[in-house]
Amino acid sequence: MTSIRLTLAYHGGGFAGWAAQPGLRTVQGELEAALARILPEPVSLTVAGRTDAGVHAWGQVASFECAAEPPDRLAERVNAVAPPDLSVLRAEEAPAGFDARRDARSRVYCYWVLASPVRSPFEEGRALWWPHPADADELEACAGALVGTHDFTAFTPTESEHVRFGRDVITAEWRRHPLAGPMPGELVEFWIEADAFMRHMVRVLVGTMLEVGGGRRTVAEFERLLGGAPREAAGPTAPPHGLYLASVRY
Amino acid sequence: MTSIRLTLAYHGGGFAGWAAQPGLRTVQGELEAALARILPEPVSLTVAGRTDAGVHAWGQVASFECAAEPPDRLAERVNAVAPPDLSVLRAEEAPAGFDARRDARSRVYCYWVLASPVRSPFEEGRALWWPHPADADELEACAGALVGTHDFTAFTPTESEHVRFGRDVITAEWRRHPLAGPMPGELVEFWIEADAFMRHMVRVLVGTMLEVGGGRRTVAEFERLLGGAPREAAGPTAPPHGLYLASVRY
Repeated sequence: MTSIRLTLAYHGGGFAGWAAQPGLRTVQGELEAALARILPEPVSLTVAGRTDAGVHAWGQVASFECAAEPPDRLAERVNAVAPPDLSVLRAEEAPAGFDARRDARSRVYCYWVLASPVRSPFEEGRALWWPHPADADELEACAGALVGTHDFTAFTPTESEHVRFGRDVITAEWRRHPLAGPMPGELVEFWIEADAFMRHMVRVLVGTMLEVGGGRRTVAEFERLLGGAPREAAGPTAPPHGLYLASVRY
Repeated sequence: MTSIRLTLAYHGGGFAGWAAQPGLRTVQGELEAALARILPEPVSLTVAGRTDAGVHAWGQVASFECAAEPPDRLAERVNAVAPPDLSVLRAEEAPAGFDARRDARSRVYCYWVLASPVRSPFEEGRALWWPHPADADELEACAGALVGTHDFTAFTPTESEHVRFGRDVITAEWRRHPLAGPMPGELVEFWIEADAFMRHMVRVLVGTMLEVGGGRRTVAEFERLLGGAPREAAGPTAPPHGLYLASVRY
């Protein structure tokens, strides 16, 4: 058996998330269908981060095992038959038994916020439009409080299947970039790396931090949520179209 | 009469260009329709750069005259009724008789090239995908040759209505940016400022410079085109979806 590691980018707008589901267009479904046209037998993909409907990926990682040697230029061949919202960035042989999910040491996510009084025609479906205040110091103080091991119960749906709510946040920060041309405002990015993430975790973190940045909560209140507060104590779930799985570390 | 100056951003993908045309969706048509819902009488827009079908704008400028004082928060009101691929960034009173086209001193355009072996799901309709070589030194040498006054006959369609083919290029340069995540390649931007541009001029310049960057022409051959060579001596017209009217100077 040969283990193959795929690095993937996709625009989540047209997908009902990663995981194959009957009757729905999913990343796993499209990619397994493309692979089936190239490989001698069907494969089953394992993935580092099971992204939800609408969530994008700049650097998702998936793996599979195949009995035969994979053909040369596998990435090019898959891209030739894959839809335009899904690209294989790299396809490479991995150590025997490589598992994209189990072997991942950490995941890096990025959330894009268009902080501007005006909606940008270029950020539709790519960033959350936020025409409200987004105080840089308050946001950065929240990010600083996230680093370390915390109980993130408040940041995942109560009906979720998780059994362990502690996660190790390795880095968390906000970065700001100017927009092209005379567009007022900024593109504000939230970057976070952790050993693993729970369902909706980054989106609830962003939704809650934006309440702090807009003056509706204090940083101290935000910090208290990190000790196992219930879901209803945190803020809203930011929409999926601002979220990107940036990369996976092994 | 009050003169009003509008600064606009639009995604060109859904428009048959700037200029109103019967039966076609155009930027001028959509914007005049939105203004008609807010102002007491219809207005006729003058524009700094008449962009072609598919061409984007980060900072287009248009002007109009109206008999009455315009309402407060005009930009916000227009944005509330305008489609999502068109935004008014600013609406302001201009000096009496201001004309967005005649008074413009220069225009700045930017062309985006995705120089990567892999198509990006995030640059569809936003950048030209260029999976070929794009030598940085050769491209920069071409840009350097553009600065100054030249005869750009080779860079506009022969059937165009222009009577004067000389244009003053104030600045021209290529800039490179990394792509998000593990995506291979770069976003390569061509920036050019000139007093005025002819139809397709930036797109033919880019199409021809990419031939130089890919080794199919020399920089010396490119330079010779700037002395009034015929259209057929230059390269292909790059597609509209990589082109942005970045700003207009007055």
